[in-house]
Amino acid sequence: MRKWVIGGAQMGAIQKNDSRERVVERMVSLLDQAVKEGCDLVVFPELALTTFFPRWYMEDQAEVDTWFEREMPNAATQPLFDRAREHRIAISFGYAELTPEGRHFNTSILTNRQGEIVGKYRKVHLPGHVEYDTERDFQHLEKRYFEPGDLGFETFDNEGTLMGMCICNDRRWPETWRVMGLQGVELVMLGYNTPSVNSQNRGEGLAQRLYHSELSVTAGAYQNATWAVAVAKAGVEDGFPLMGGTIIVDPDGFVVARTQGEGDELITAGCDMERCQFGKKTIFDFARHRRIEHYGRITSQTGVER
Amino acid sequence: MRKWVIGGAQMGAIQKNDSRERVVERMVSLLDQAVKEGCDLVVFPELALTTFFPRWYMEDQAEVDTWFEREMPNAATQPLFDRAREHRIAISFGYAELTPEGRHFNTSILTNRQGEIVGKYRKVHLPGHVEYDTERDFQHLEKRYFEPGDLGFETFDNEGTLMGMCICNDRRWPETWRVMGLQGVELVMLGYNTPSVNSQNRGEGLAQRLYHSELSVTAGAYQNATWAVAVAKAGVEDGFPLMGGTIIVDPDGFVVARTQGEGDELITAGCDMERCQFGKKTIFDFARHRRIEHYGRITSQTGVER
Repeated sequence: MRKWVIGGAQMGAIQKNDSRERVVERMVSLLDQAVKEGCDLVVFPELALTTFFPRWYMEDQAEVDTWFEREMPNAATQPLFDRAREHRIAISFGYAELTPEGRHFNTSILTNRQGEIVGKYRKVHLPGHVEYDTERDFQHLEKRYFEPGDLGFETFDNEGTLMGMCICNDRRWPETWRVMGLQGVELVMLGYNTPSVNSQNRGEGLAQRLYHSELSVTAGAYQNATWAVAVAKAGVEDGFPLMGGTIIVDPDGFVVARTQGEGDELITAGCDMERCQFGKKTIFDFARHRRIEHYGRITSQTGVER
Repeated sequence: MRKWVIGGAQMGAIQKNDSRERVVERMVSLLDQAVKEGCDLVVFPELALTTFFPRWYMEDQAEVDTWFEREMPNAATQPLFDRAREHRIAISFGYAELTPEGRHFNTSILTNRQGEIVGKYRKVHLPGHVEYDTERDFQHLEKRYFEPGDLGFETFDNEGTLMGMCICNDRRWPETWRVMGLQGVELVMLGYNTPSVNSQNRGEGLAQRLYHSELSVTAGAYQNATWAVAVAKAGVEDGFPLMGGTIIVDPDGFVVARTQGEGDELITAGCDMERCQFGKKTIFDFARHRRIEHYGRITSQTGVER
């Protein structure tokens, strides 16, 4: 399938004591709206099933683990998978994954329109910190609760379209987009939970944060000639504001749909995958133009070296 | 020196029969204006000394070579170097370089405020094609007249600030910015000659072209926490329109100065290099956040591979 109607299902705040079942009801409601709008694929945010728990400092691993899913689908999410299969809509959403081996990842999955999981991604670029940071206005403990993803940036053939995923902070790293671009990706899906203020710089507010997010997604889409869908969890969670700014971006880097608010809100766009071809065959024809002999530092060093 | 007043010296059209001497007079005039505005550094465009000759198909190498400079400075450009030294202004500009060994590069140089060349860059990402292309509305023969740069993306300590250069199409490639970012670059300078329409897509006009240029420069600046100056040669050259859009961008990815027209026009901004530190120490602290084990494709393959 080369022409997809894609939905970006922004979700409003999820409070600390909201149950998964209640959240999944909201996701099903967004899915039902997507059915009416003719969607073939709906993308939900990062950690879609719970509040953004990495803002809370926890020392008890058993308590931490209550935020994680041990299997997918599970009892709480089965209604979402069932409804998606019923309506032949592919879905992608994020959740905290606890593996049988006891490993913790910030994960997203992708299904086909038959409700089968055809792709999994585990967040590579974990922001934040490991220990309690007294200098921040609030905590961002992703480096404490998750290990970096071990699957890389794979792409998945979903009914004839090449799809990839990344999560939140990954979108700010051009390496994320390029590794998928070098596989010929045609659609990049991502969710995020992005605070409306910078925990380390109170002067950096909502407008600046939205700009940086959109800048990263539009540049990644343009420079790899791919569609992109970036979906927020937004609103005030337990007193902490998350920004909205859900967008669908075309392979030329232009925003074609955008949410207006910070609540549950669906945006849609008709996305013809053939539109990726012009960029991939001309200015971003990598085979003709890239000069890897000059890129060595990108993979040979992690930090800054003179 | 950590606080620089930087000038972006956009240049209007240069016709095919304009002499280097006449062009250098215009550059000196822009430099004199920069003196009045207190500049410490002025950046001129790519191939600043001549018309954008790669739009012309030539078979006679002797004719091609008339567009190239055999030494720098040379008699035509000496007045510019002299005036810059006199006023203690560093300069950067682009020109077609013919080496003593007979090699051809699309080059830019950087001087210190004493008028000494402290950095040289040779364009890595050559756009366009080698042979006459009947399917284009006009030719873009950079791949015919130049070989890809052999110096990589070096950075140069210019009086205590780390500066790098790239040229035109290089700005669209995140690898360009990242290789300099991995050296800790604080200021990236680039010039361009960008046609106002896409030679392979008549529907892609000025607004879209300006958007793509600014998107690439602002994303590169933000994602590497560096100042950036992108300077156009603009206006209608021998019947072919080049876009303007000269900008100075801060290390947060925001445009702080912008030209209004398509003629000779100077913009300036006070650029405090310490402003690069916040990004480099937080969200883009590469040493803490990059995961090179997942970036392998970027340097191991040139084109798309599944």
